[in-house]
Amino acid sequence: MRVGIIGVTGYTGNELLRLLFSHGGVEITYVTSHSYSGKSLADIHPHYREIIEPVCRSFSVEEAAEKTDLIFSALPHGESMEKVPLLRDAGVKVIDLSADFRLADAALYPRWYKREHCAPHYLKEAIYGLPELYREEIKKASLVANPGCYPTSVLLGLLPLAIRGNLADWDTLVVDAKSGTSGAGRVPSQNLHYPECSENFRAYRVAGHQHTPEMEQELGKLVGRKVSFTFVPHLLPMIRGILSTIYLSLNAEITEEEITGIYSGFYANEKFVRVLPATILPETRNVYAGNYCDLSLKLDTRNNRLIIISAIDNLVKGAAGQAVQNMNLMLGFKEEQGLEMVPLRP
Amino acid sequence: MRVGIIGVTGYTGNELLRLLFSHGGVEITYVTSHSYSGKSLADIHPHYREIIEPVCRSFSVEEAAEKTDLIFSALPHGESMEKVPLLRDAGVKVIDLSADFRLADAALYPRWYKREHCAPHYLKEAIYGLPELYREEIKKASLVANPGCYPTSVLLGLLPLAIRGNLADWDTLVVDAKSGTSGAGRVPSQNLHYPECSENFRAYRVAGHQHTPEMEQELGKLVGRKVSFTFVPHLLPMIRGILSTIYLSLNAEITEEEITGIYSGFYANEKFVRVLPATILPETRNVYAGNYCDLSLKLDTRNNRLIIISAIDNLVKGAAGQAVQNMNLMLGFKEEQGLEMVPLRP
Amino acid sequence: MRVGIIGVTGYTGNELLRLLFSHGGVEITYVTSHSYSGKSLADIHPHYREIIEPVCRSFSVEEAAEKTDLIFSALPHGESMEKVPLLRDAGVKVIDLSADFRLADAALYPRWYKREHCAPHYLKEAIYGLPELYREEIKKASLVANPGCYPTSVLLGLLPLAIRGNLADWDTLVVDAKSGTSGAGRVPSQNLHYPECSENFRAYRVAGHQHTPEMEQELGKLVGRKVSFTFVPHLLPMIRGILSTIYLSLNAEITEEEITGIYSGFYANEKFVRVLPATILPETRNVYAGNYCDLSLKLDTRNNRLIIISAIDNLVKGAAGQAVQNMNLMLGFKEEQGLEMVPLRP
Amino acid sequence: MRVGIIGVTGYTGNELLRLLFSHGGVEITYVTSHSYSGKSLADIHPHYREIIEPVCRSFSVEEAAEKTDLIFSALPHGESMEKVPLLRDAGVKVIDLSADFRLADAALYPRWYKREHCAPHYLKEAIYGLPELYREEIKKASLVANPGCYPTSVLLGLLPLAIRGNLADWDTLVVDAKSGTSGAGRVPSQNLHYPECSENFRAYRVAGHQHTPEMEQELGKLVGRKVSFTFVPHLLPMIRGILSTIYLSLNAEITEEEITGIYSGFYANEKFVRVLPATILPETRNVYAGNYCDLSLKLDTRNNRLIIISAIDNLVKGAAGQAVQNMNLMLGFKEEQGLEMVPLRP
Repeated sequence: MRVGIIGVTGYTGNELLRLLFSHGGVEITYVTSHSYSGKSLADIHPHYREIIEPVCRSFSVEEAAEKTDLIFSALPHGESMEKVPLLRDAGVKVIDLSADFRLADAALYPRWYKREHCAPHYLKEAIYGLPELYREEIKKASLVANPGCYPTSVLLGLLPLAIRGNLADWDTLVVDAKSGTSGAGRVPSQNLHYPECSENFRAYRVAGHQHTPEMEQELGKLVGRKVSFTFVPHLLPMIRGILSTIYLSLNAEITEEEITGIYSGFYANEKFVRVLPATILPETRNVYAGNYCDLSLKLDTRNNRLIIISAIDNLVKGAAGQAVQNMNLMLGFKEEQGLEMVPLRP
Repeated sequence: MRVGIIGVTGYTGNELLRLLFSHGGVEITYVTSHSYSGKSLADIHPHYREIIEPVCRSFSVEEAAEKTDLIFSALPHGESMEKVPLLRDAGVKVIDLSADFRLADAALYPRWYKREHCAPHYLKEAIYGLPELYREEIKKASLVANPGCYPTSVLLGLLPLAIRGNLADWDTLVVDAKSGTSGAGRVPSQNLHYPECSENFRAYRVAGHQHTPEMEQELGKLVGRKVSFTFVPHLLPMIRGILSTIYLSLNAEITEEEITGIYSGFYANEKFVRVLPATILPETRNVYAGNYCDLSLKLDTRNNRLIIISAIDNLVKGAAGQAVQNMNLMLGFKEEQGLEMVPLRP
Repeated sequence: MRVGIIGVTGYTGNELLRLLFSHGGVEITYVTSHSYSGKSLADIHPHYREIIEPVCRSFSVEEAAEKTDLIFSALPHGESMEKVPLLRDAGVKVIDLSADFRLADAALYPRWYKREHCAPHYLKEAIYGLPELYREEIKKASLVANPGCYPTSVLLGLLPLAIRGNLADWDTLVVDAKSGTSGAGRVPSQNLHYPECSENFRAYRVAGHQHTPEMEQELGKLVGRKVSFTFVPHLLPMIRGILSTIYLSLNAEITEEEITGIYSGFYANEKFVRVLPATILPETRNVYAGNYCDLSLKLDTRNNRLIIISAIDNLVKGAAGQAVQNMNLMLGFKEEQGLEMVPLRP
Repeated sequence: MRVGIIGVTGYTGNELLRLLFSHGGVEITYVTSHSYSGKSLADIHPHYREIIEPVCRSFSVEEAAEKTDLIFSALPHGESMEKVPLLRDAGVKVIDLSADFRLADAALYPRWYKREHCAPHYLKEAIYGLPELYREEIKKASLVANPGCYPTSVLLGLLPLAIRGNLADWDTLVVDAKSGTSGAGRVPSQNLHYPECSENFRAYRVAGHQHTPEMEQELGKLVGRKVSFTFVPHLLPMIRGILSTIYLSLNAEITEEEITGIYSGFYANEKFVRVLPATILPETRNVYAGNYCDLSLKLDTRNNRLIIISAIDNLVKGAAGQAVQNMNLMLGFKEEQGLEMVPLRP
C-alpha cells in the first residue's frame, strides 16, 4: 500500500514518518511541506540522512490521488479542513491528525477554535479514531479523525467507567493533565524557549483547552447524558509524555481490586492498553516512544473518590502511533503491525 | 543573635545556611552533621569554599545551648523528635523543619509516619509555623513546627476561602500537587537516579502522602468541621518548585474577579503571598529561590468549580525561607529581613 | 538462533533486550540477574509488561550452554571475566560488553581497572568488536570484546586518519568527550542523584579514564607507533548520547573538503557511519536510540588544526546496538538487521 | 548613586536588575526597553511583581543623563555602539555588556561581527572590564567594555600562565567550551526550542566564534606575542553555566601541585576566583547564580599537557555580576558589594 503525509516536517508528521518507515507493509510515496517544498527532508532534519530521504512536495490533490492510497494529514487545525475535502473528493482515504473533523457538531468549532468550520458536511463521514471505542467503524471508514493527545489519555482512562454510567457521579469529574513540550509543536515561541520552560512548571488554558469538547462529546455518548467537567492542562519540562490524573466520586462502594478488575476485563483484548496492578503506578517513561497507554486505579477510601492515572506518549498513542493503528484497521493490516516496540527506557 | 543548624548537610540545612549567610542580623555559630562530623562544610559542599566554611560538629545539647540562641532542626522526621526536647529543656528556642511537631494529635503520628511519637508532651507547646496564619503566636513561640512544603502551597491557596467556610463545598476538595525532586532530599535512590527521573513524570503516594493530616488539621480548624480531601502528589523532572492545582466546588455564584478580590484583600499586607490577576498564571520559575507564593484564581463557570493554582519554591517558602521568616518573628527582626530577593529567572 | 543476556537488568542488558526483541531473527531464551533471580523482568521494569516478560534466572553455565547459541554478557567489568571463560569452555559464543577482554596486554588491566585480570589466556581469542575495523575477524570470532562507548565515538572519528599515519601529528591529539548519564549505569549514586546533576556540568577522571588504553591500543596499531593522547570525559545533564570533540594538528596543507572527502570515501560502504558535510554539525539527538555515528570534519585554518566531531548514542552504537551488529556478523545475519530504525527526534 | 539599564528585558538586563536590587548602594532610576516601552516590567516578567516594578522607557540620552550617574548597556552588539557614544558625550559613565567596545582594533570588528564599527574613536577610551587584570584602569574608567562570557572563563583560566609566557607552548592551545542556553539570549529560535535542545548536545561556530578575537587580543598582550588558538563552543542542555576545558603543552617539567600553587598565589587576593585543589573539579552548579570562577589544574603527565578547567555562571561572572563588580570599582564601592551570595545548589 502507498501512503502519504501532508505536513511532514512538523512533530506529528515527523513521528509518522519514523513509524511508517519501520512498518513493513506500506511505502511512503508522497510527502509535502509548505515551507520546505523542493527540499530533501534530510536537509531539514539530518537524523533522516542515509535512512529515508524523500523530497518534500507542495500539496497537490492530483499528485496525492495518483501516488497514494491513503493520506495522513499532519497539518495544523484550520488548514486541514481546507485540504481534506479535496482529498476525499478525489477518492483518497484520509486520517486527519488535526482537530478539524473530531467534533460532530460544527457549531462547537468556532467556540473552541476561533473560526468557522469550512467543511461541515464532511463531519458526518468522519469516524473518531479511537480504536478501543470505534474499531469496527474505523475498519470501514474513509475519513478518520485521529483523537487529540489529551483526549486519548483521558478517554482510555474513563471508557470502562463511562459505559457503566451510574457507577460514578460525573458531575464530580476533574481531570488534571500534564504534557511534555512536544505537544505544542515545532514552531518556536517564548513559552517554549529552553531557558523559559526548563526547570519550570505551569498550568495553561485553565478550564478552556480546545480538547475539552471532544472529550465531552465522547463521554456524553457513553454515559448517556451531558458531561461537563473541569479540565486543566499543564506544561512539563520534558519532551514527550502525557500523564492525566482523573478524579471522580463513585456512587457505590467498590474496592480498588474490583475496579481494577473491571478495567482489566474491559481491556483484556486490547494490545495497547495496559491496566497495572494498584501497586504499580504509570510513569510516562514506561510508554516512551511506544504506543501504549498505562492505567492505574486508586481509591481514596476516606471519601470514596476514584483516582485514575493514565500515561501515554503524546506523539505516539496520542498522535502518530494511533494514526498508524487506525491505518492498520483501514487497510486490513494486523492492528499492531509496526507498533510493537519496547518503550525506550532509560 | 547566634543561631545553629542541626543536620546542615541535607538540602534544607544547606538552604538555611545559604539564606542565613545573607540575612545580616544573625551569626551562624553552630552546625552539626552526623555523617561528616569534624569536616569543614566546604569539603563536603565545595560551593561554600571561601564564602562560609564552618566545621560540622556532632550534636551536643550542651554545646548547642552554649553557642546559640535559636536552633533550626533540619533532621529527618523521627530523628528530630529525639533531639528537640533536649534543646527545649536546655532553654534553646527551636524551629523544627521536620514533621515531628506539626500534628497536635499524637495518635495521628504512627498512622502516617509508621512509628510512635516519642515526645508527645511537646506537641502542645509547638506552634504551626505558617506566619500568614499564626503570626502572633509565632512571635511568642519557643518551638515552631515549620510546615511541610506541600501544606504551605495548599494552605496559602485555601486560607481566604477556608475562613469563609460555607462558600465552598469542602467535600469536593481535590488537590493535585507537583513537586521538583529536591523535596525528596539528598539521599540517592533508584527513583531519583538521573536517567530514571529525567524525561519522566509520575504520581506517588496517591491518596496516602504523610503531609495530608497536617493540611486536614489546619483546614478543619478554619472551616469549622472535619475536612477529608483527596491529595495526589507527583514528581516533576526538575530540581525546585511546587505547583498545586486545587479544585473545589463553590456553593454560591461568584465571579473570577470577585474571588480574586477576596484573596487580594486577605493577602493585602502579606509580603510573601502574591495574588495574580486571573490573566497571569503562576509558574514555579517565578518564585525560584525566592520566598514567594504566587496564587491565581480561576473559575470553571460551566460547573461553578473554583481552580486555585499555587506556586512556591519547595526549599524556600516550602522549608528554609519560611523557617527564616519564623525566626525573624521569634527574634524580633523585620519579618522580611534576608528574604527580599528577586526570584532567579532564567 | 537462540540468544541470552547475562546481567539483563542493567542499562546495557536492558537495551540489548529492547533491540533483540525487534530483531526478527533471534529468540531470547535465557536472561539472568543476580539481584532479581526468580522474578519476572516486567515486575522490575514495568515498561516490558505485556510485551516481553522473561523470568530472570541465576547464572548457570549449563543452562546457558543448553538454552543458547550466543550469550551477551552485560555484567560489570571484573565480574564478566569470571563468567565468560566458563561460557567459552562450554562452547557458547560470547559478546562481552564489559571492558574485560578489550586490552590485549593483560598487564594494562590492573593499572586501569585496579585489579588483576583473572583470565588472561582468553585475551588472545577475543576480537575487538568494532565492525568498521575488524569486520572479517568478527565474522569468525567466538569471543567478541564489544568496545567502550567513548572508544567507539573516538575511534570511528579517527580511523580514516589513523591509517594515513603521517598526515597528522599524533602527539597533538586531544579528545574532549561528553557523555549522558546513562553511561554510568543504573546504580544510584550521589553524583547521579537528579538534583545534583541536572542543571550541572563537570569533567571527571581527567586524563585518567579507564577507556584510554583501549583507544591507545587500537590507534597505535593503525598509526604504527605508540600514541599517548589526552582524554577528558565530561558528564552531560541528559540521559543518552556521547559527543567527542577531537583536536589534532595536521602535517600537510589540506582543505576541509578534501579531508571530508577522505572520510566519505573511507566510510562509503558503512551503513552506520554518516559523514556529514562541513555545514552540518553532529548533534547527539540525531542519533538518539539509533545505531549511527555522525561525523563532521572542521579545520581551524589559522593553525592547521583538524577538529573532528563525533556523535553516538552511548547505549546503542556505544554498547547494545554495536553488540547486535557484532552478533549479526557472527551468526550470519545481514549486518544491519534489527538496527535500521530512524533515530528518535524530538 | 543612581544607575540605569538600557535593554532591561533581555537576560543580561534582567540579571543586572536582580543583582542591583540587592546591592544596597545604588538606586535604579532608569530602565529602557525598545519593545515594551511604557509597560511595567512586572507585566512582562511577573517574577518582579511586588518586588521591583519599574516602568520601561524608550531610550533618551537626555533622560539617561538627567536621571543616572552610570548606565549599563545590555543592548545587543551593533545597537550598543550607536547609543554608547551619545551617553559618553553627555557625560554618563557606561558599562557596556555588548561586544562593541572590546576590540581595540576596529578592523577586527567587521570580520567577526559582520558589520562596520560606527564609533571606532571610542575604542581607545574603553577599558576591558576584567577586574582581575585591569582593576586600576577600571577604577578610573568612564567606559568599560564588559568581557564576553566565554572570554571571562578562558582568560581567568589562563592569566597566571600567560604572564609567564614561556612556561607554555601557546601554539598548542585548544579551548573546548560548553555553555548553557541562557547565553544565547531571550529571543526564541528553532535551535533553542525546548524539544530541540533538551536531551541534546552539539558544537556550534566551530573555530569561528566571535569571542575568539577578544581572547586573542588579551592573551597576546600578556604572552607578548600573537596567540592564535582553537576555540570550539558547545551548547549544553541546561540554563546557566559555562565550563571551559583548556589544553596546553608545557615547556617545563612541573607538577600538578606546583602549577596549582602558582595559580593559588596569583589569585590569593581575588575574591571571585577560587583555585581548587586538584582533587576537586569545578562544576557549573557550584557557581550557580554566584559571581565566582572556579578553577582546577590537572596535568596529563604522560605527555606534559596541562588541563585547566574553569567554571562560571555565564549570566553572573560572565555578564551581569562582572558588570556590577566593575561598577563597584568605578563608583568607589567595595569591590564585592552585592556579590557575596552563596551559589544556589541544589
